[in-house]
Amino acid sequence: MLEQVIKKIVPTDKNLIREAYKRIDNLTKPPKSLGRLEEIAAKLFVINAGSMPISLKKSVVVFAGDHGVTAQRVSAYPKEVTYQMVFNFLNGGAAINVFSRHVGAHVFVCDAGVDYKFPPDLPIISKKVGMGTRDFSKERAMSLEEAKRAVEAGMEVARQVIEMGYNLIATGDMGIGNTTASSAIMKAIIDADTKDLVGRGTGLDDTGVARKIEIVEQALKLHKPDKKDALDILSKVGGFEIGAICGFILYGASRKIPVVVDGFISSAGYLLAFLLNENVKDYVFFAHNSQERGHRVFFDFIKEKPIFDLDMRLGEGTGSALAFFIIEAAQKMYLEMATFEDASVSRN
Amino acid sequence: MLEQVIKKIVPTDKNLIREAYKRIDNLTKPPKSLGRLEEIAAKLFVINAGSMPISLKKSVVVFAGDHGVTAQRVSAYPKEVTYQMVFNFLNGGAAINVFSRHVGAHVFVCDAGVDYKFPPDLPIISKKVGMGTRDFSKERAMSLEEAKRAVEAGMEVARQVIEMGYNLIATGDMGIGNTTASSAIMKAIIDADTKDLVGRGTGLDDTGVARKIEIVEQALKLHKPDKKDALDILSKVGGFEIGAICGFILYGASRKIPVVVDGFISSAGYLLAFLLNENVKDYVFFAHNSQERGHRVFFDFIKEKPIFDLDMRLGEGTGSALAFFIIEAAQKMYLEMATFEDASVSRN
Repeated sequence: MLEQVIKKIVPTDKNLIREAYKRIDNLTKPPKSLGRLEEIAAKLFVINAGSMPISLKKSVVVFAGDHGVTAQRVSAYPKEVTYQMVFNFLNGGAAINVFSRHVGAHVFVCDAGVDYKFPPDLPIISKKVGMGTRDFSKERAMSLEEAKRAVEAGMEVARQVIEMGYNLIATGDMGIGNTTASSAIMKAIIDADTKDLVGRGTGLDDTGVARKIEIVEQALKLHKPDKKDALDILSKVGGFEIGAICGFILYGASRKIPVVVDGFISSAGYLLAFLLNENVKDYVFFAHNSQERGHRVFFDFIKEKPIFDLDMRLGEGTGSALAFFIIEAAQKMYLEMATFEDASVSRN
Repeated sequence: MLEQVIKKIVPTDKNLIREAYKRIDNLTKPPKSLGRLEEIAAKLFVINAGSMPISLKKSVVVFAGDHGVTAQRVSAYPKEVTYQMVFNFLNGGAAINVFSRHVGAHVFVCDAGVDYKFPPDLPIISKKVGMGTRDFSKERAMSLEEAKRAVEAGMEVARQVIEMGYNLIATGDMGIGNTTASSAIMKAIIDADTKDLVGRGTGLDDTGVARKIEIVEQALKLHKPDKKDALDILSKVGGFEIGAICGFILYGASRKIPVVVDGFISSAGYLLAFLLNENVKDYVFFAHNSQERGHRVFFDFIKEKPIFDLDMRLGEGTGSALAFFIIEAAQKMYLEMATFEDASVSRN
């Protein structure tokens, strides 16, 4: 599945941008005065092959997984919080539930590798690759085979969600320890100081951050991942949910469905997807600039601009859910605003 | 009315911030991980005297007015666009209509001084102070009496809207030429280079901007407004809709109702309100950072941070409408998220 999907991701037709602006510049407002919303509308139009989707059916998938590296005390919270939060998602009490209800999006939860056996009757998309990864400061996080399965799991989830009719889909994550894995992935690919890629995660103090930096550097020295090989990197320092996010983005792009990338962890997944096929960039919206330290370096590296910056650093897809609102505002601007002719407004 | 309302604006009780965070820090997320949303929720809680409003009934008022200074060719659009856009608002075809429908807010249109006689049977809040201001590059924009009436008109509108049950209200503006008036107001108060306070408005070229800078400097030299006297400034270089926005903000604050301030023009109105009573700051949310050049200088001056920055520069309240969504997300975070105890999630 993996190779097939990757091969199917083709660049969008950039000539359609002009086509989009033919209408956007004709709406009753000075040209470009709606700034980023105009760019977002144009990108939606281009992704959708030269027309604007009449309605956006929105969903966010929270990919959950555990991380062996938590043994190194790289998180302010105990590992159990991963599965406890999965229950919180199912009960509708987490931030992602609140924001998704607010914006009219559905929340799916995917178990990509939580170290907990969930009862089979729960509404979880079960794609468990393993009971958490291994401690990558000591050994590979997962086998190459597992890395591939994680990515394919995310592809499969995207396929399911798209078949249900969702045409604006987003990533989210839950996994105690996963900022450490994400920093390690970014460090494996981006030529930057480790300290600029490692943040406080859920709330480490300075000593904790220093330890986290050391763990990341140690792991990269130990594993020497190939900076061009996404599966090699994922298997050595990644996480099951990060692999799944990578696959989810790839599949969305292969089906020409716009994908919203949430925060720091989702960006690590994106970076792996980008390594596998750079064309994914044509199908992606970056929700927000996370407070997590490495996120700015990531955006500099990929030369993209997120939609907003509200000093958030929660994950779960909370940035994605809020970004849905702005993307939908752009879509509605395109579809619902009057033109100068419609409204008999004089031009400049 | 004016003096009475101004006297009634008292600081909020800052001790309540701690009270708000008792709940916010107990919600299932790492402390502070929802960044600005937590600050917004705390501010709402404090404005509402120590409780969170159960529902937010949202409306934006677009204050419209004409400007005599348009005779100096300071805008890329002809003056008629002001009244033409009022019809567009009434027909639901403008950006503010689209965004307000999207976020579930009502749009009111107030004629504060458009140079056009609207039929009396239109759903316009008619508070016409005059048929547009006079050309302030040559004479006072309005008399002191008119300035006072404009501010009181805005107060009256806020009163009407609040009596209808709206408990989250916002400013918007429409007025060809009003970035010039707003720049002049800011220049009268803020000690900054004129060129840093004057932008392209609806889309002036470099020659146009140079002319606009000259007009602003000339007007200030001519009128020498008192930088501490809001009504003096308003009467000399202001606009009817800007005065009304000032009054609207003051009245909202006097009734302890949160007011969202839109972009550059609304910020000029805010600055006048701030001169009249600094306590207004406790009741205000700044929607966004406008692309209009002077807006950054304004935020530096008042030491506030807007909610987002999407490179917008349209006015009408479009920033306010989008900001409603974020403010409501913060409110719902506070009200709907599970606590650690509710959800049996382990703490750090």
